[in-house]
Amino acid sequence: MIQKLIDKICLKDAPVVVGLDPNLSFIPKSLLKRAEDAAPGEIPEYCERENVIAAEAVWQFNKAIIDAVCDLVPAVKPQAAMYEQFGIPGMIAYKKTIEYSRSRGLIVIGDVKRGDIGSTSEAYARGHLAGKAFDADFITVNPYLGTDGVEPFVKICKEYNKGIFVLVKTSNPSSGEFQDVLIGDGRAVYELVGQKVRDWGADNLEGVYSNVGAVVGATYPEQAAVLRKLMPHTFILAPGYGAQGATADDLSGFFDADGLGAIVNSSRGIIAAYKKEKYSPFGEEGFADAARAAAVDMIEDLRRAIHSSRTVWNIGR
Amino acid sequence: MIQKLIDKICLKDAPVVVGLDPNLSFIPKSLLKRAEDAAPGEIPEYCERENVIAAEAVWQFNKAIIDAVCDLVPAVKPQAAMYEQFGIPGMIAYKKTIEYSRSRGLIVIGDVKRGDIGSTSEAYARGHLAGKAFDADFITVNPYLGTDGVEPFVKICKEYNKGIFVLVKTSNPSSGEFQDVLIGDGRAVYELVGQKVRDWGADNLEGVYSNVGAVVGATYPEQAAVLRKLMPHTFILAPGYGAQGATADDLSGFFDADGLGAIVNSSRGIIAAYKKEKYSPFGEEGFADAARAAAVDMIEDLRRAIHSSRTVWNIGR
Repeated sequence: MIQKLIDKICLKDAPVVVGLDPNLSFIPKSLLKRAEDAAPGEIPEYCERENVIAAEAVWQFNKAIIDAVCDLVPAVKPQAAMYEQFGIPGMIAYKKTIEYSRSRGLIVIGDVKRGDIGSTSEAYARGHLAGKAFDADFITVNPYLGTDGVEPFVKICKEYNKGIFVLVKTSNPSSGEFQDVLIGDGRAVYELVGQKVRDWGADNLEGVYSNVGAVVGATYPEQAAVLRKLMPHTFILAPGYGAQGATADDLSGFFDADGLGAIVNSSRGIIAAYKKEKYSPFGEEGFADAARAAAVDMIEDLRRAIHSSRTVWNIGR
Repeated sequence: MIQKLIDKICLKDAPVVVGLDPNLSFIPKSLLKRAEDAAPGEIPEYCERENVIAAEAVWQFNKAIIDAVCDLVPAVKPQAAMYEQFGIPGMIAYKKTIEYSRSRGLIVIGDVKRGDIGSTSEAYARGHLAGKAFDADFITVNPYLGTDGVEPFVKICKEYNKGIFVLVKTSNPSSGEFQDVLIGDGRAVYELVGQKVRDWGADNLEGVYSNVGAVVGATYPEQAAVLRKLMPHTFILAPGYGAQGATADDLSGFFDADGLGAIVNSSRGIIAAYKKEKYSPFGEEGFADAARAAAVDMIEDLRRAIHSSRTVWNIGR
């Protein structure tokens, strides 16, 4: 699966993933109104009217964003929490978003951050990667429980040709509390986790890269440089560009000499672009066009930063 | 919410939670057959026939277990992965299990192990604790992302009088890989996490204990003794009894001088008791009665271990 992702990155010359984290505050009022009007008189059992409406609005919003960016970017990353909060209708919207994204040729990274022990991790892996429930191409995984919490995901990845990105150094301000703590030998916890991620993925390579990738926040370029060296075959999913403060120059070190090795996520910065001054001329109704314009700008920004320090970018072409 | 849990523990004199992790292999064939026969001719959109059947079997199985143990124990702990693996119908079974458990007077600990950054954690917290989607009383939370990943859960707990159990030292064999690593000052990572859990819960006490609890594996009594001292106001959820190998004697140190401070989980050991030699006379069809007998034995076992070293047990009575 990682090779499929790399092929699409090269084809589109865009190491960019659009995060589908549709906070209700991003959704235009007119779209919320239409979702309300469209709600059936009789709400299905175990769904709540409020959630049915919210989930329909989220789905219509996503659909427009996906249509607007699917020719520009290789992948989308729906954030499960934003769907789960709306209960059963929300989970249906999550499922529909995955299926529609795939039908538009996009790779889907389900940002679920699951992780548990043994057979429980296997149930999560089957639920999200085995094509029988929520059929993402990749999911994100939390490593806190160690090898026997992660290996079931790796096993299912092999069985179904899917991939995972394991949290190593996250993009948020307090990620250092546990991840940056120095251990006895002078390394940080994130380095220890990075080494394990490398090991977990060692026999699951497709070409240069492994189907076991890592999440490394774009907001931490120094840690990323350490990790890039430590995990030469690990593809990096880098959240934190834009709204969380990271710039394209911060990201240059995430890529290898060929300009590959990482894919950068932006969520709010793209899907809620119309709320930023730069894209405000599109207006609320033009949210999808604003998202497209923001995606074009982000891609240009990253191309510039990566190409400026390298001779070759799109090695796969 | 923690006081409600403690009251129920005292009332039933049973610091025991039954883990509802209904692996399909635990479910009697006759029950699976009935679920298959009951499947509607037309399967709802975004559900799969296979998942509709599995979810119905899981729900019927849970219902029988809940009916069999609800007068004995204070709480149940459905494991989200076991439901999520069956997609939308699975999530409906999860929701029904929560609602039915509460209707039978049980406290529900949703074992979801969620954790993300800021607004995303808040969405998970709203989805699982705010009574609008999946309405658990407590959920489990993964701390790997640090304070700004956990605080949104704490905030929602205060707002809705709910609780969380944060993973500190998990019960699985490889939990030591990251959790036991010694940091610069000679403490282990789990101690650092335990200290944070204590701090996160410090201004959310009800009586002696906080609504911010900790998960500490029953399989690690030595680490639990350290943590019990470090976190005097933190209630412990202890998985790992029975099937994972921990005994009641391993658990004595999890409790405080009054015999409170912890609740012990058993999943397979109770819900699949009929598969063990001791309870095999109940047979497959008697799975619920076998679960009840196993719960009675577990409660007796824990009472003996706790009472033997203490004068008072049920302080709340």
